[in-house]
Amino acid sequence: MTTTVSAETLATLKTTATSTLTTLLFKRGFRNVFIQGARPLKTGQRLAGPAFTLRYIPAREDLDGIDAFLDPRHPQRVAVEEIPPGAVLVMDCRGDVSVASAGSILATRMQMRGVAGIVTDGGLRDASGIAKLEIPAWCSGPSAPTNLIRHHALDINAPIGCGDVPVYPGDIMVGDDDGVVCIPAHLADEIARDAVPMERYEDFVLEQVRGGASIIGLYPLTKPENRALFESWLAAK
Amino acid sequence: MTTTVSAETLATLKTTATSTLTTLLFKRGFRNVFIQGARPLKTGQRLAGPAFTLRYIPAREDLDGIDAFLDPRHPQRVAVEEIPPGAVLVMDCRGDVSVASAGSILATRMQMRGVAGIVTDGGLRDASGIAKLEIPAWCSGPSAPTNLIRHHALDINAPIGCGDVPVYPGDIMVGDDDGVVCIPAHLADEIARDAVPMERYEDFVLEQVRGGASIIGLYPLTKPENRALFESWLAAK
Amino acid sequence: MTTTVSAETLATLKTTATSTLTTLLFKRGFRNVFIQGARPLKTGQRLAGPAFTLRYIPAREDLDGIDAFLDPRHPQRVAVEEIPPGAVLVMDCRGDVSVASAGSILATRMQMRGVAGIVTDGGLRDASGIAKLEIPAWCSGPSAPTNLIRHHALDINAPIGCGDVPVYPGDIMVGDDDGVVCIPAHLADEIARDAVPMERYEDFVLEQVRGGASIIGLYPLTKPENRALFESWLAAK
Amino acid sequence: MTTTVSAETLATLKTTATSTLTTLLFKRGFRNVFIQGARPLKTGQRLAGPAFTLRYIPAREDLDGIDAFLDPRHPQRVAVEEIPPGAVLVMDCRGDVSVASAGSILATRMQMRGVAGIVTDGGLRDASGIAKLEIPAWCSGPSAPTNLIRHHALDINAPIGCGDVPVYPGDIMVGDDDGVVCIPAHLADEIARDAVPMERYEDFVLEQVRGGASIIGLYPLTKPENRALFESWLAAK
Amino acid sequence: MTTTVSAETLATLKTTATSTLTTLLFKRGFRNVFIQGARPLKTGQRLAGPAFTLRYIPAREDLDGIDAFLDPRHPQRVAVEEIPPGAVLVMDCRGDVSVASAGSILATRMQMRGVAGIVTDGGLRDASGIAKLEIPAWCSGPSAPTNLIRHHALDINAPIGCGDVPVYPGDIMVGDDDGVVCIPAHLADEIARDAVPMERYEDFVLEQVRGGASIIGLYPLTKPENRALFESWLAAK
Amino acid sequence: MTTTVSAETLATLKTTATSTLTTLLFKRGFRNVFIQGARPLKTGQRLAGPAFTLRYIPAREDLDGIDAFLDPRHPQRVAVEEIPPGAVLVMDCRGDVSVASAGSILATRMQMRGVAGIVTDGGLRDASGIAKLEIPAWCSGPSAPTNLIRHHALDINAPIGCGDVPVYPGDIMVGDDDGVVCIPAHLADEIARDAVPMERYEDFVLEQVRGGASIIGLYPLTKPENRALFESWLAAK
Repeated sequence: MTTTVSAETLATLKTTATSTLTTLLFKRGFRNVFIQGARPLKTGQRLAGPAFTLRYIPAREDLDGIDAFLDPRHPQRVAVEEIPPGAVLVMDCRGDVSVASAGSILATRMQMRGVAGIVTDGGLRDASGIAKLEIPAWCSGPSAPTNLIRHHALDINAPIGCGDVPVYPGDIMVGDDDGVVCIPAHLADEIARDAVPMERYEDFVLEQVRGGASIIGLYPLTKPENRALFESWLAAK
Repeated sequence: MTTTVSAETLATLKTTATSTLTTLLFKRGFRNVFIQGARPLKTGQRLAGPAFTLRYIPAREDLDGIDAFLDPRHPQRVAVEEIPPGAVLVMDCRGDVSVASAGSILATRMQMRGVAGIVTDGGLRDASGIAKLEIPAWCSGPSAPTNLIRHHALDINAPIGCGDVPVYPGDIMVGDDDGVVCIPAHLADEIARDAVPMERYEDFVLEQVRGGASIIGLYPLTKPENRALFESWLAAK
Repeated sequence: MTTTVSAETLATLKTTATSTLTTLLFKRGFRNVFIQGARPLKTGQRLAGPAFTLRYIPAREDLDGIDAFLDPRHPQRVAVEEIPPGAVLVMDCRGDVSVASAGSILATRMQMRGVAGIVTDGGLRDASGIAKLEIPAWCSGPSAPTNLIRHHALDINAPIGCGDVPVYPGDIMVGDDDGVVCIPAHLADEIARDAVPMERYEDFVLEQVRGGASIIGLYPLTKPENRALFESWLAAK
Repeated sequence: MTTTVSAETLATLKTTATSTLTTLLFKRGFRNVFIQGARPLKTGQRLAGPAFTLRYIPAREDLDGIDAFLDPRHPQRVAVEEIPPGAVLVMDCRGDVSVASAGSILATRMQMRGVAGIVTDGGLRDASGIAKLEIPAWCSGPSAPTNLIRHHALDINAPIGCGDVPVYPGDIMVGDDDGVVCIPAHLADEIARDAVPMERYEDFVLEQVRGGASIIGLYPLTKPENRALFESWLAAK
Repeated sequence: MTTTVSAETLATLKTTATSTLTTLLFKRGFRNVFIQGARPLKTGQRLAGPAFTLRYIPAREDLDGIDAFLDPRHPQRVAVEEIPPGAVLVMDCRGDVSVASAGSILATRMQMRGVAGIVTDGGLRDASGIAKLEIPAWCSGPSAPTNLIRHHALDINAPIGCGDVPVYPGDIMVGDDDGVVCIPAHLADEIARDAVPMERYEDFVLEQVRGGASIIGLYPLTKPENRALFESWLAAK
Repeated sequence: MTTTVSAETLATLKTTATSTLTTLLFKRGFRNVFIQGARPLKTGQRLAGPAFTLRYIPAREDLDGIDAFLDPRHPQRVAVEEIPPGAVLVMDCRGDVSVASAGSILATRMQMRGVAGIVTDGGLRDASGIAKLEIPAWCSGPSAPTNLIRHHALDINAPIGCGDVPVYPGDIMVGDDDGVVCIPAHLADEIARDAVPMERYEDFVLEQVRGGASIIGLYPLTKPENRALFESWLAAK
């Protein structure tokens, strides 16, 4: 998977709030970029990296018995070994949290391989074990049962839906405590560029509000005096 | 799409109740073969044919505007023109009934092309228009909005999920007033073979029950005297 | 099952609208008497009879294989043979419509035995076959798969929940095109008694409204002149 | 309620398919105009008229006892008497189908008063009685219990949500067998204007498809020869 | 907003468990007072104050673009500036957690203004930022997208539904780790009065149970000896 | 309740991950053993013990008023006093989290009586109080309202459904941070026996993976060299 997104863009996005990013995407007409239902396994996680996808369809009893994993080409296991360092494993589980889509051994392997993170609209098993790792993870909830009960791993790196959001391989996944945003790859650079002043302005607003300012005319900026104030605040930094 | 299922098998399946088929599949360990949520557009419809699939993922505003249909390779339109006569269009809409997955013009075109039927876990628009056609259709409900609002047509004839059921291209879709069953292709012949005596026995049971018989020992057959009775009933046919 | 509800009460209830009955029960503090999700299999069905219950719990693979029905004491089959004539089979399927709770053979047997009707918050298989019978039926939808896939038939004539409503054996089930109401047994007589004048008044109202009357002061009756009008209308009948 | 929508616009909209209307609105950026969950009470119903709204909030036991209807200013009853002829009663029931939002007496009164139709995302009681009237109705399902059990009628003609769609008083509600579309009032004229040629083109397409034409290049029109064909078809009408 | 609830009542309610309050309201016939789905953003939060409401309806693309916030009268922003100190902002988001209903800047502003807390049946963005503030908050989950994607802020201080519960301006909202209860304003004083002895008795029960006592006859109090025990316990305090 | 499961089996199960157990049960054909929706009240909880069940059906206003608890035979209170030490209280709340199924006083009493834990698919009230106890608890969420609002406690120690899973009295409930598994009683010993080597192998795998090994051929074990490696690893322990 080749992604043309620069390390600088990823670094910026990794420190940008998902709330800022969804607003910037909304301004460009994108209303459906937030992975619904995917919660962080622990607080304080940050993530930015290109999507590497795994698609599950419903399991079938004759194909998805316990022996399915004996096949060295089983797509879930292959995905874990082939996802490039820095990429994010994004799994399409059709929002089904009744079983797991991965567990702590696979998460550990991905961490060893330098994978940036895990995002799934299904469950994760041994979720507290995964939470102890460094690799960040977002899922619809802890769920012990093996994925074979409900899922058949089918495709690696095809476009998928995850949490009702379209995810194309190479799209930039950004995560924080609120959840995960999927930024279409071709917009990542410009979103990162716009994020910096927007976050800076929000820092200014927060400081003003903490000092007792009203939000009217300040958030968003509509009063000219607030612009002047912001500019001197910026200059003073 | 090559299917080795004989015309005779299809003919048998088309007149077999989906309740019978799900039981025969359950006996072989298949618990998840009934397309959940797909209701017939009108009563009396029967269907048997190999699945030809169309996969939708969630729409993205920059890819799925009204102009998407100007592309002659748009997968939904291509599917309608390429699905073989006798096949069944099965659509993966992730169970989303808020928009349509097809409408009466596409349904009419498929009828003209000899398509056997339409099965979707999404909506159908101009549903009463489709109901007036000969081509049978099952969906999660009438729904007027264009598919572009929620769906991006992506894949033709890939394995999909439909109504939480795995559907592989070439699987045999059988439908009646209860709904639609997906029979894995390699089992179609033997399921058809077993369906005949099972339906015959159920005809016998129904006749006995209408005559006042108790179902204990008769349904299922456990009392030897009922076996004898059935055999003479059969012989008399 | 002994029920002290008179044939006269049942006859009155059978011709009373479920909307009237839910209002009469609401006046006595009962807010939760309408079986949620249970729709009539066909229009024009009427039902009144004491509940005879069947309770399903989730199936377990080692107990609920296809051989479960070989046991002549299987509670579903026993229920069908033991439910008294005039009673209503009410099934607790935990609202799960993914499988059937009964089919046309059992329905035919119950019709032969004089059973008054079938109410389930699960599915019915061969639903169009059942719709052709005389026995009325309400369910959450047609569903072909055998009940063994999801259900283990456990108890006969224990108190159950059906469509989120408590149903005690002997409670009076009344059904029409809107759905089914469960009347606690000890209230059946007084509800029937109150239903007659209430329905008569509603007939009067409907006639007045068709004649152009406003509903204010008429429905409900708060204007004295309407009471006089009603009384002469009654006298003229 | 003053609406500037002409009788001619309403007449056009009443014969336009909701599928056409949702597409025309989608072309203008409106993705959420189809009342989700509102099904027609019977087939063949058509509707076009300005919205007159009734808003319910959850009921409270001390405010919404059976005596609530004794108040001649009860908003539900007032709405029924004050809604202008030609308008459509649109009710916000928060999608709750467990109780009714109106019944056949109120529907009859509205029919007498010349009301154009009823749209609700809740239930309707005595639904088969309403289905026998001429006034068309769309709801989330038949439901016998009185609205007082779950609803407190609060506002008349305030903006509401109905079936997850924003409905402002005076918006034009158009309904057919697929369901109901809400057209923002200021767009009604131009949508009606655009609907005529679009429906005419679809008639042409359907005729072509019935004659064996492929949809590629025809639906939508991208091949020049089809434009010529359409123009001669039009001329011949 | 004028509320006649005394500071003493609020102080009592703020230290009373919501479980106690729902029981006291249930004794008076109120079954639906607990805001369903609203979870605390962090543990240990306590809240008591009169409701100040904000009502959202579904968004419409032409009204709810990013520029909507430029209007200084935008109801969300106005609500934040006008809600009185000590009051609780209660938002009706129709239970939709797919977008935010407020974020950390607005929460900070409300904290500065002395607002008692935030209750919503929708999402909150920058939820971990809000959790670091002193102002307590309950919501259906963290959610990054801006409210404009799904919500149109319409009304300030109208009666609303929140988490399926009716909330009238001035009702007393009380929150703890279980969630939030809405006490009808006219009952706040008597509920507070009854809460004190009830909580005291529960303290006594807990002490007895920790000492090995059975709950039968103790919880609730039905054995006379337990009353005597309680009275000496009380006297000893 | 007599259970033949040995203390040794329980001790083994208590330290086995639920993910391991669901896989071992899946190998034996059990797909539905994980209590859906039951989350731990706090992290780090472990549980193993035989199920003692309590079944709720929907409440009825005339039976389930606040006085219901005055009856010393109320099944919820009786269950709390009669559940044997070491057993697990498992409650069937039909997945309804809108009210509580128990609170901190009952939980404290059970802890005093040596009860092993609490599992419910409903809510728990004063959930943070319960979380401070030693007795572990899993539920669908905190919920303050009394169970009487929605539940009627009916049966003690009958087979139930909990979180869509069949639970028979005496089945072994095992819980950890992922959730709770129900092991059919007759399988507990063999599952415990198989769990030990499986967990040991997973420890080995984790160590290998942390050391940089690929999972292909290792997890599951298919490469002979990994078997040898495992055996020397085992020997070295």
